[in-house]
This record gives sequence, structure tokens and C-alpha cells, in this order.
Amino acid sequence: MADILHKVGIRSASIDQVYKALTTQDGLAGWWTSNTKGEGDKVGNIIQFRFGAGGFDMRVTELNAPTLVKWELAEGPEEWMPTTIQFELKEDGEYVIVLFKHLNWKEPVEFMHHCSTKWAIFLMSLKSFIETGKGNPDPYDVKIDNWN
Amino acid sequence: MADILHKVGIRSASIDQVYKALTTQDGLAGWWTSNTKGEGDKVGNIIQFRFGAGGFDMRVTELNAPTLVKWELAEGPEEWMPTTIQFELKEDGEYVIVLFKHLNWKEPVEFMHHCSTKWAIFLMSLKSFIETGKGNPDPYDVKIDNWN
Repeated sequence: MADILHKVGIRSASIDQVYKALTTQDGLAGWWTSNTKGEGDKVGNIIQFRFGAGGFDMRVTELNAPTLVKWELAEGPEEWMPTTIQFELKEDGEYVIVLFKHLNWKEPVEFMHHCSTKWAIFLMSLKSFIETGKGNPDPYDVKIDNWN
Repeated sequence: MADILHKVGIRSASIDQVYKALTTQDGLAGWWTSNTKGEGDKVGNIIQFRFGAGGFDMRVTELNAPTLVKWELAEGPEEWMPTTIQFELKEDGEYVIVLFKHLNWKEPVEFMHHCSTKWAIFLMSLKSFIETGKGNPDPYDVKIDNWN
């Protein structure tokens, strides 16, 4: 099993604001993909994330406001099955720290390398969304390679 | 053991140009840290990378121009011992693809989350350095969190 790990620190924000950006349709659409359908504020809910080339359905499996959000992949590309995603939030001085984990990839395939870099780009979009009011969700995301 | 994986695709470049940016002092100083000392074009060479807060000495352990560069940590922070770093290069259409691996972390500590995101930022700096002639090496790098 292989994991993707990341960390960003968000300034000028309360931990509640960051939690909201991870658990509401408007929040998620502000930094990951503009084409987000569903609310992530209840365990069991499904959130649909769509991108140009396809997408993911995530089932909310655990919430502990405002410090923890966990999803499992309900539907998505073969390589993402049966991965889980979690966001751990904590305050540290003037920062809200987000520890991100995309866990349990079966194999460290090239697509995992791509997704790892892409997650960093999207987490920087989350940081920008909260700090400045403007994120870079798909289709306005920064392109990294031949897979976009 | 835990690994950091990333992928970027570089346009308007030859694979030799990218290999050079990974094996020369001027190249490495153009995207990772301005304070780089040493050439990475011979197995056994030590390259010194210095940042505001400290740095790393890397020993070149394997080279296969222009497709493979491998380093091992000769000196650096406890959490980075005894990790290794490798860059695999290949051409794909108009792109030079870089598959990056920072392998064999003993533990998935918070510092590993930080370094994973930071590597994505520096690899985007490598992409920019080659595509536009201007990278964002330390101390001009994009800041991601309370550890910079």
C-alpha cells in the first residue's frame, strides 16, 4: 500500500472557515472542482466531483468538526479503488494547518505520481481560496503535465 | 517505509536540457536552491544544497544520461536519513516527463507531509525554469505553511 501525504498552512483564517471549505458544496467548488455536487457535512453523504476527463464520487465516512474530514471513494477510476482521503486540521499560531492523506493506493503507478503533484496544486488552491477569496479549481487549475 | 512520488511534464524542452538542470550546479541553483555547491555529473560527487534553515548534502549514486539521476543523503536532518532521491526522465510527445521519487522515509511524520508538498512546488519551479528560463529556487520559492 502506498500513500500520498501533504501539508499546507492557511493564514488569515479560522479553523471553522477551513472546515467549511471541506464540507460544503460551495467550499469544495471553490478550490477543487467547479463541478461539485453534494454537501459533505453529514456522514453517509455522497459528493460528486467532476472534471473534464471524468470524476470521483466520495462517501463521507467520518466528521469531527472542525478537525477531521474523512471520505472513501464510492466510484472512480480503477487506480483510486479502494483509497480513502482525509483532512486533519489544527491551529498553530497564525496558521490553520491542514494535514492531507490519500491512503491505500494498491500500487505506486505513474498515475499516483501525477495525483500526488496535482493534490499539492489543489491544496495550494484551497490555501488561496481561503486567504484571498479566490481559488483555482478545475477547469482553472494549474496544469502540471501531459495528463493536465 | 514511506515514499514521496511526483510527476511533472515539461514542454519546449529537450530531455538533455532537463537532465542538465538536474546534474549541474547552475541548473540545480536555477530551481531548487540558489545556494547550491557542486556538480552532479559524476557518480560519487557530493552536492551541497543550503536553505535558510539548514540544508542537505547529496551523494550522486547513479547516472544514466539523459534518463536517470539518483542521489543518497550524505548529510541532513534526522528525518531524511537514510532516504534516497531519484529523477526518471522520458519523452512523451511534446513533453519531457519527470517521475520523481524520494524514497525510504522511516516514518510518515508531519515533516514528510511538508516535504511532499514542497517537492511539488520545487518541481513546478524546475518546469518553469526550463520552459521560461526563470525558476523559483529558495529563497524565492512559494511558501506553503508555517515551516515555509
